[in-house]
Amino acid sequence: MDLSKRALEIQASPIRKLMPYAGTAKRKGVSVYHLNIGQPDIDTPEEMIRVYHEFSEKVLAYGPSQGLDVYRHSLVSYYAKHNINIDESDIIVTTAGSEAIIFAMLVICNEGEEVIVPEPFYTNYNGFATMTSINIKPLTTYAENGFQLPNDATIEALIGPKTKAIMLCNPGNPTGTVYSQEDIFRVAAIAKKHDIFVISDEVYREFIYDGAVHTSIMHVPDFEDNAVLVDSVSKRYSACGARIGCIISKNKTLMEATLKFAQARLCPPTIDQLAANACVYLDDSYIEAIQQEYQKRRDLVFDQLMQIPDVVCRKPEGAFYIVVKLPIANAEDFVIWLLTEFSIDNETVMAAPAEGFYATPGLGRDELRLAYILNEQDLTKAMTIFRKGLAEYIRTH
Amino acid sequence: MDLSKRALEIQASPIRKLMPYAGTAKRKGVSVYHLNIGQPDIDTPEEMIRVYHEFSEKVLAYGPSQGLDVYRHSLVSYYAKHNINIDESDIIVTTAGSEAIIFAMLVICNEGEEVIVPEPFYTNYNGFATMTSINIKPLTTYAENGFQLPNDATIEALIGPKTKAIMLCNPGNPTGTVYSQEDIFRVAAIAKKHDIFVISDEVYREFIYDGAVHTSIMHVPDFEDNAVLVDSVSKRYSACGARIGCIISKNKTLMEATLKFAQARLCPPTIDQLAANACVYLDDSYIEAIQQEYQKRRDLVFDQLMQIPDVVCRKPEGAFYIVVKLPIANAEDFVIWLLTEFSIDNETVMAAPAEGFYATPGLGRDELRLAYILNEQDLTKAMTIFRKGLAEYIRTH
Repeated sequence: MDLSKRALEIQASPIRKLMPYAGTAKRKGVSVYHLNIGQPDIDTPEEMIRVYHEFSEKVLAYGPSQGLDVYRHSLVSYYAKHNINIDESDIIVTTAGSEAIIFAMLVICNEGEEVIVPEPFYTNYNGFATMTSINIKPLTTYAENGFQLPNDATIEALIGPKTKAIMLCNPGNPTGTVYSQEDIFRVAAIAKKHDIFVISDEVYREFIYDGAVHTSIMHVPDFEDNAVLVDSVSKRYSACGARIGCIISKNKTLMEATLKFAQARLCPPTIDQLAANACVYLDDSYIEAIQQEYQKRRDLVFDQLMQIPDVVCRKPEGAFYIVVKLPIANAEDFVIWLLTEFSIDNETVMAAPAEGFYATPGLGRDELRLAYILNEQDLTKAMTIFRKGLAEYIRTH
Repeated sequence: MDLSKRALEIQASPIRKLMPYAGTAKRKGVSVYHLNIGQPDIDTPEEMIRVYHEFSEKVLAYGPSQGLDVYRHSLVSYYAKHNINIDESDIIVTTAGSEAIIFAMLVICNEGEEVIVPEPFYTNYNGFATMTSINIKPLTTYAENGFQLPNDATIEALIGPKTKAIMLCNPGNPTGTVYSQEDIFRVAAIAKKHDIFVISDEVYREFIYDGAVHTSIMHVPDFEDNAVLVDSVSKRYSACGARIGCIISKNKTLMEATLKFAQARLCPPTIDQLAANACVYLDDSYIEAIQQEYQKRRDLVFDQLMQIPDVVCRKPEGAFYIVVKLPIANAEDFVIWLLTEFSIDNETVMAAPAEGFYATPGLGRDELRLAYILNEQDLTKAMTIFRKGLAEYIRTH
């Protein structure tokens, strides 16, 4: 009895792949600073937790497939604050950003059709592509210029008869790169010219530093029919376990089709939607404090990296990740070595090898993604261990 | 810019299709008894709601992709009570039963391969098939013999080179049919002979009447590698809004592949899993009371149906649905008529036309599914309106 080809081919999580080595370290009594995962350490807002505490319905019932009316209504005001002008009918609430991307792929692409994605990209896009039988065509970007988008000709060269969309992650996971308004408008113009969609994953919208301004795909004028926004509360409110996201488009035909997929799975979790709803009404100071905290951490990590000779890394403007090119041949070997052979005062550090974030074979082998989701003190220790470990690794290898 | 073929072809929910007519009735001041939907009216256990009230973590974090350890541990004891002997590693917690079925289809079937499903079947199986690019091959069953499975030759005649699994829903939605141990073992033997899987949707396991005994696919001896169980807490604990289910198999290769799909979407909702966990420890009296309540309702609905001349319906032993064949040409027209032209004391009733539950074109056009999810008093009124409405409809059409 064979399983399906897709069952055999789906990528195992490159972020979790090295976890057994971390387990081994811990069993030896070595603490591990995890810079490999994107689980924020910031407290979930009390206003959100309170919703769980106060749930008072007798029956925990199905909600509507498109999401609870009260929450979709609130989301309209959330997006209005970000100059994204939509109404309730443009929103379908999803089970996290994951489901929003799966729905976007399903409604836009037939089996075997293609979505262009700048690489390195969020590795789970590969899983979603396998689930929906579509192909990701990577648009390579480089550490040397901060993983910014290449020129129009390079992008257009990838567009073929099977290309149905360009998917952006902005700010980017794993790169932290924020695309300028000019670049977003430029991609939209290319998409319009070739009659394809742009799917924009903006789950890190608020994680943007140095006063930079975020440009949403929904800000592009005269692009309503081509623009699909996917979003999630996971990072924004440190609520990864709530599994609440949404898909947004002003393309009515697309949303009607999406609703049929949404109806098949009935609805997203009910109380979690009510909890996410409370977050819309948080004071702006909540997000401002988080921005300041992450900016401080980003500066700390970047400054530490800059003390290492021969690393390639531009200061990222967003998200809470940074991809750094190291002067070594194989970053995965280095991470395994950190976990198995190196420690300072019984502490070591773990990062995510970046190779798994590339679709082009061989790329990213000398790169790592660091997630700065530790408090300042731990992050300082982690980066010191990282720096000293790298120096030692280079000396001995 | 075209959408995908699957976006155009995915079935709109036949259960929700006639909802606009119900809206019209309500706007005219006519109350509607909803026998069309499967949302239980029973209270969610207080023990479950309490978990939401007592959540005390600071960060609502991702859980493991396979589900929380504490919950998987509890599920082992839940299944042991049902003579299903598994361990934690045989379980992956999913976002409701929907995701469990999607995962099963993805790991078992390539695009274009087939799963045999007795019809009438739960309509959302069509949506999951569209999402995963597989085909459902219907195995027709009939009201005349209570929608029981046909003989071996009829089942085997459907198995071709593209057939990878037989999927059963037991007890059945929409039929309420419970398969005997003999029939489950018979299907397993056929699957074994042809080297295919059996996916068994057992979300109504406890909804079983007249002292009948439920046979799980996991009860079949020497069938471990072929058996895949999908399950959900939605109906069992009247917790449809929690979106917690699971996929279970002792086939290690299948579970490893499923885990990779599960990792792509990160995890099911965290607090909802904790809430579902509390349900495992409910006293048996909780389920017994529900069984008694639904059995009483089933008897009420069936007795009322039996007062109608020329209906075809065998008394179902499980779930909370009944499919009845009516002496009219088009059951959908009848439901629309009930909602738009008929009422008694400003009340009418809504049921789900069964045609949408069949994959074979034309079948089920004279059948309806009734869900008995109202209390006895309301159900009595609803069935009286239904009976009188049908008599009037037959007289005037």
